[in-house]
Amino acid sequence: MTPPRLSLSGLNALPVDTFVAALGEVFEHAPWVAEAAAATRPHPTVAALHEAMIGAVRAAAPERQQAFIAGHPELGSRVRRADWTDHSKAEQGGLGLDRLSAEEFERFGRLNAAYRAKFGFPFIICVRRHTRDSILAQFARRLDHDAATERERALAEIGLITRLRLVAKVEGPGAPATTGLLSTHVLDLASGRPAAGVKIALYEIGSSARGLIREAVTNADGRTDAALIAGEPLRIGTYELSFEVGEYFRRGPTPILRDAVLRTAPQDEAGRERPHPEERGRSPRVSKGEVAGMPFLNVVPIRFGIAEPEGHYHVPLLATPWSYTTYRGS
Amino acid sequence: MTPPRLSLSGLNALPVDTFVAALGEVFEHAPWVAEAAAATRPHPTVAALHEAMIGAVRAAAPERQQAFIAGHPELGSRVRRADWTDHSKAEQGGLGLDRLSAEEFERFGRLNAAYRAKFGFPFIICVRRHTRDSILAQFARRLDHDAATERERALAEIGLITRLRLVAKVEGPGAPATTGLLSTHVLDLASGRPAAGVKIALYEIGSSARGLIREAVTNADGRTDAALIAGEPLRIGTYELSFEVGEYFRRGPTPILRDAVLRTAPQDEAGRERPHPEERGRSPRVSKGEVAGMPFLNVVPIRFGIAEPEGHYHVPLLATPWSYTTYRGS
Amino acid sequence: MTPPRLSLSGLNALPVDTFVAALGEVFEHAPWVAEAAAATRPHPTVAALHEAMIGAVRAAAPERQQAFIAGHPELGSRVRRADWTDHSKAEQGGLGLDRLSAEEFERFGRLNAAYRAKFGFPFIICVRRHTRDSILAQFARRLDHDAATERERALAEIGLITRLRLVAKVEGPGAPATTGLLSTHVLDLASGRPAAGVKIALYEIGSSARGLIREAVTNADGRTDAALIAGEPLRIGTYELSFEVGEYFRRGPTPILRDAVLRTAPQDEAGRERPHPEERGRSPRVSKGEVAGMPFLNVVPIRFGIAEPEGHYHVPLLATPWSYTTYRGS
Amino acid sequence: MTPPRLSLSGLNALPVDTFVAALGEVFEHAPWVAEAAAATRPHPTVAALHEAMIGAVRAAAPERQQAFIAGHPELGSRVRRADWTDHSKAEQGGLGLDRLSAEEFERFGRLNAAYRAKFGFPFIICVRRHTRDSILAQFARRLDHDAATERERALAEIGLITRLRLVAKVEGPGAPATTGLLSTHVLDLASGRPAAGVKIALYEIGSSARGLIREAVTNADGRTDAALIAGEPLRIGTYELSFEVGEYFRRGPTPILRDAVLRTAPQDEAGRERPHPEERGRSPRVSKGEVAGMPFLNVVPIRFGIAEPEGHYHVPLLATPWSYTTYRGS
Repeated sequence: MTPPRLSLSGLNALPVDTFVAALGEVFEHAPWVAEAAAATRPHPTVAALHEAMIGAVRAAAPERQQAFIAGHPELGSRVRRADWTDHSKAEQGGLGLDRLSAEEFERFGRLNAAYRAKFGFPFIICVRRHTRDSILAQFARRLDHDAATERERALAEIGLITRLRLVAKVEGPGAPATTGLLSTHVLDLASGRPAAGVKIALYEIGSSARGLIREAVTNADGRTDAALIAGEPLRIGTYELSFEVGEYFRRGPTPILRDAVLRTAPQDEAGRERPHPEERGRSPRVSKGEVAGMPFLNVVPIRFGIAEPEGHYHVPLLATPWSYTTYRGS
Repeated sequence: MTPPRLSLSGLNALPVDTFVAALGEVFEHAPWVAEAAAATRPHPTVAALHEAMIGAVRAAAPERQQAFIAGHPELGSRVRRADWTDHSKAEQGGLGLDRLSAEEFERFGRLNAAYRAKFGFPFIICVRRHTRDSILAQFARRLDHDAATERERALAEIGLITRLRLVAKVEGPGAPATTGLLSTHVLDLASGRPAAGVKIALYEIGSSARGLIREAVTNADGRTDAALIAGEPLRIGTYELSFEVGEYFRRGPTPILRDAVLRTAPQDEAGRERPHPEERGRSPRVSKGEVAGMPFLNVVPIRFGIAEPEGHYHVPLLATPWSYTTYRGS
Repeated sequence: MTPPRLSLSGLNALPVDTFVAALGEVFEHAPWVAEAAAATRPHPTVAALHEAMIGAVRAAAPERQQAFIAGHPELGSRVRRADWTDHSKAEQGGLGLDRLSAEEFERFGRLNAAYRAKFGFPFIICVRRHTRDSILAQFARRLDHDAATERERALAEIGLITRLRLVAKVEGPGAPATTGLLSTHVLDLASGRPAAGVKIALYEIGSSARGLIREAVTNADGRTDAALIAGEPLRIGTYELSFEVGEYFRRGPTPILRDAVLRTAPQDEAGRERPHPEERGRSPRVSKGEVAGMPFLNVVPIRFGIAEPEGHYHVPLLATPWSYTTYRGS
Repeated sequence: MTPPRLSLSGLNALPVDTFVAALGEVFEHAPWVAEAAAATRPHPTVAALHEAMIGAVRAAAPERQQAFIAGHPELGSRVRRADWTDHSKAEQGGLGLDRLSAEEFERFGRLNAAYRAKFGFPFIICVRRHTRDSILAQFARRLDHDAATERERALAEIGLITRLRLVAKVEGPGAPATTGLLSTHVLDLASGRPAAGVKIALYEIGSSARGLIREAVTNADGRTDAALIAGEPLRIGTYELSFEVGEYFRRGPTPILRDAVLRTAPQDEAGRERPHPEERGRSPRVSKGEVAGMPFLNVVPIRFGIAEPEGHYHVPLLATPWSYTTYRGS
């Protein structure tokens, strides 16, 4: 699907016009940016190549820079009213810009117009680092800025956008970090081992709705086989992980009895390490009645904010039927 | 509002007919229950009085007992469709039987009919110990019982209903527990002291909706001035406590600086215990940017089930800006 | 044993000489302090009375103040070599000044001499707020001070000493806080209830030894019947609480089965709340082998420092057989 | 140092006598065990080879089996009185059998004699899986066994001993697990990141003494560069990890400020992600006085038992200046 990436060493050796043809579209309608970066080759790292391109934008004459910023498309192109189409679910799920209520759609329109009227160029933001709610929050905040601050901010966002594009296109040493990671881990502190088979769901929590991003089940190590989000920036926003620990504790340790027995094998049995027959059917840790009726903990929601799209968010759950702890781990 | 309660010692001394007049309505349409209890006076405790009355029911001839059970009103009398009236919010809030959707209202009707058809008497449940969801769950489960089990269960529920009525009416030693307690406590583990000024909300979480029960703010000890629920049975169901810890940590320790300084007073200053001037404006524990943007923890939801209406549920929160622990405390 | 305390209102009404006779010894060899405080009666609170007395010291002529400070006895009077006598164990236990090694005894002697040589008055410290280790640490630190700082510090310590004496002697409103509190609470997070019957020991941890202060066993609420330390200042120092949780979990929930069943009573059994026969012998939460051999947690030590003699230190333990949490609570 | 390991495939192809020469000493003075295993080649895994050898012992005639067991050397050969020699510290540290007090030395002697008198063969135990205390505990317990149980147990221990020898000698697929792992991880929950630079010490806690095993300092990820114990069996026993968190929190976040700022970068600064000048010198999380004097937490001891020599014990610490949590992780 994705075209093969170009190698940095190959780019360093290309004729100027081929180099510009290869990278000209990284900066919107501005092949002169690639031309400037061609002139300072070789670039030892992908980050250095990107800095050279950004440097060309910052060094450009004011009119050229202004025209460059103004030439960016309006955010609206990715915005859709939820009732327009049966648009397919975005890869990351959540509450995408393609699923706006009529009211939100109008609000985007008004904000775009107000921004352009005040600053003379469109609202530029690296959409892939944001949720719908954080874009709306940014819109409101940035409309309050003065012109110099906002021009600086537009250039910073263009830096983030083009960094993503360049890393997608070029492979080589020293690539800047453009992806984040969201992971979890569930430990059963009542039995001192990973909680296997716990159903997990990840939601984006918007101001007016919640959108499912993905579901997973913990493996024998209490982790999900794949990270909850990886390989792309995390979107700034509020999230909720829900863990079905009630079902896990109701089921009891039976399905992973072997592990349990190994872990609790008495030293006297060192050479045998097999459960005594009467231990095979060992009752679960919580009585049937308690759970069938109404367990203290059933679905545990953990709500947290993501502020660093390129960060690693590890959000573990340490649980018993009567308690839990969560934290930002590493 | 509430009529004054009768004293147990007074009841023990009353003529039989006055005694029966006073307690005759505790057991629905069954003054003979009070008559039987009058005959075995004096009762040393309120619990003993209640046991004597229950004993009379259990000792009654089958036809009389059957008639007694069948004489109970249908649950429907407390059930209302949400659109019927502007019925005032119940004291405990939540998702009361007076706020049913049309669909739920129909469902109650069908269940009532099915129950009566199978058992020949109405579905009896101590409503004050239940939420709407737990009543529906009980309905479904109890319809599966056989007649003997369900007759036993109806008597047990009548025991719970009349225990509440009797304790409301009679004061004296040895009253059975008829009230539960829900409380919380917020500790700031980053600064080692109670978290004051944290906004808390308590919700009932139904299968299809959530209902606010009450709001509170933590005091200087990190507790709420009054228990979240007290003085009545807790209703079996699912609840959520939400804690606005993001706002608390953003605000920082300033409002309770004096406590903070006392707590951290160095031993060298033992006789003065006043902050050094440069400590007065001590910066909050988290940077402005971090919180203004998107704190890791903002509103922390703790979802838990209540299974024991007469239990004490203490649900504390031990929090830092990056972690929290909750548990069933005592 | 203790003589009855005088009432503040009585003191306010006494003739001057009787007042001075009653309070003259609060400030060492300085009845003029009580005389000054007599002249500004009535004092609305015990704290105000103390402040009046301290104020008299601070307002005294330099020579008188100097003589007052110099008139204090040397610390040595309470210091004993451990091998001197079979001196009875102090009430609070720990590593008292009456149990010094020969080396420590010599060190105190050298420090006393050095202090008097530098400042011209004895080292004054409110001994009841300190352990032996914190006194030694204070000695070393205060020897580095200049004369003005140390004169100020001596007055502050005299304030702490006389505050304790005055509160012991006078009862009335507005007494300053002179006592601290050390308490604990053990919760079993595997079963969601207080851990009853856990053996606890409290030690003072000195730089070269540890001294037992007291032992206790948790009651049905997971607390000790009396606070671990109360009614006197906490001594600044390092402490260790040890909790025998291994024995607790090995024993299992049997001894408090009734509570356990009440807590986990299924809603279906609401009217009976008695365990099913097969639940009576419910196995403990950890297998016999695991614990007999070598449990993961056996004796849990919690080591902590006390810096505020008049503070409340609540140090709870939230434990499972495989985890625990502790914190400074409230 | 270590001779190169033999390959399983090579062993499968060797002439019988060479095979026996290579593996004959794995089972003490019993080349007939290797001979039997030679006859059932090829063995698909190292575990299968070991099972074949164990099977030969179990299938041997009673006299031969008895002679084999009795031919094992007495434990005493590894036992030394601490004052005999300046014997070098064992690799794993702790309280080795080479550092017995005179009293312990005598005790071993008495136990050896009693065991041989009762069972007719020496006490056999896989020493590398035990501490001195657990060997003494095993001795006491196993002396109570009957002869059949103890013969079975001796064979089981021989299985453990020869498993270690075989895995050290033979490489190939399906090797049984003979090594354990002890690791830790320190997280600073007050700042939401790994705690770097925390000093850690690991001790073996014996009934009468404690022995240092190793020291380490956490790296930028809050872990130790190498596992605390790896590459050998963990010795059954009691251990203590001590963490110098007081010093860590006193030092404050300065040394890893860059990480801190990245983590807390406000979304408004997305393109710059550099600290504002006034943030550079951000004050540490705890006031100087608090820590200089007497922090609440200084050295945190975590005491735990190891019961599974081949297990993975991950013992993390989640800490703030006022709280901590530990658990058996994975």
